[in-house]
Amino acid sequence: MRMAPTDMPFTDQDHRLMRMALQEAEAAFEAGEVPVGAVVAANGRVLARARNQTELLRDVTAHAELVAAASAAQALGGKFLPGCTVYVTLEPCPMCAGALFWFRPERIVYGAPDPKRGQSLYSPSLYHPKTVVHQGLMAEEAAGLLQEFFRLRRE
Amino acid sequence: MRMAPTDMPFTDQDHRLMRMALQEAEAAFEAGEVPVGAVVAANGRVLARARNQTELLRDVTAHAELVAAASAAQALGGKFLPGCTVYVTLEPCPMCAGALFWFRPERIVYGAPDPKRGQSLYSPSLYHPKTVVHQGLMAEEAAGLLQEFFRLRRE
Repeated sequence: MRMAPTDMPFTDQDHRLMRMALQEAEAAFEAGEVPVGAVVAANGRVLARARNQTELLRDVTAHAELVAAASAAQALGGKFLPGCTVYVTLEPCPMCAGALFWFRPERIVYGAPDPKRGQSLYSPSLYHPKTVVHQGLMAEEAAGLLQEFFRLRRE
Repeated sequence: MRMAPTDMPFTDQDHRLMRMALQEAEAAFEAGEVPVGAVVAANGRVLARARNQTELLRDVTAHAELVAAASAAQALGGKFLPGCTVYVTLEPCPMCAGALFWFRPERIVYGAPDPKRGQSLYSPSLYHPKTVVHQGLMAEEAAGLLQEFFRLRRE
C-alpha cells in the first residue's frame, strides 16, 4: 500500500534543498513578487533554482517551479527531468502540475498547500503517474511568507 | 441558460482564424513536430500565431497555444489577453488550460478533442470561469492531421 504523502519522512538533504527554495521565495518577497521559490536537484546536486517572477517578466507563466524545471532540463541537455526532485515552497497550480507532467521528474516535494489554486483541487491528479509527490516540508515557513506578503498588500 | 459548447455557431471570422491555426499545424507536421497550431486574435486582428515546437526548442512546454498566448500578451504590452480569442487546433492539455486560466482570454475555440490529455478529462474545469470555450471547429481537419502524423511515426 502506498503511504499517504504526509507519512513520508523527509531527509536532511530534502530540508537543505527546501531551505534553498525558501530563500528564493524570500528574494521574490523582497522584489514584490508573490513569494514562491523552487529548486531542482538530482542526487543532491542543484541543477536550477528560481523564484516566481511574473511581475519582473510580465509573464503570468513565470512561476518558480516552471522556470526552475525548464532551466534544469536545459542543464541536463534534454527535455525531461529523470532522477530529479523538484522542491517548491507552494503547491503547484494546474499549469505547473500539468507542465511537470511533461517534464516527468522522479519526485516533487512541496511545502504549503494552496487551497485556492492548488492542483489537488482537481481530479484525477494532474501529476505524471510515475512522479512521487510529497507535501508539507517546511509548510509553515512557506505559508507564513505568503500570508505576510498578502497582509502587507492589503494595508 | 448557457448553451452547450457544440450548440454554438461559429462565424466566418472564426473559420478564417482556425484555418490559419491549421496552417500552423501543417507547418509543424512538415517540421516533424506533433501537428498543433494556434492563433490569438482580438476583434479579428491577429496578435500572434504559433505552432507546437517542443522538438525544435527541446522544451516540453512549447505547445502552440502557450507560445501564441505569451506572444499575444507581449504584443498587447500586458500580461493578460482581454478581448482575445485563442484558436487552437487541438483541445488544450492541463498545462495549457492552466496557463490560459492565468492569461484570461475572453474566449477559447478549439478543434479536435484530445481523449488522452485533454483538459476535459479533469474536473472541475481548468479554464478561467470567465473564459467562454467553444469546441469542434474544423475538428476533422485537425484530427486528421494528427492521425496521419502518428500513423507515419508508427511505420
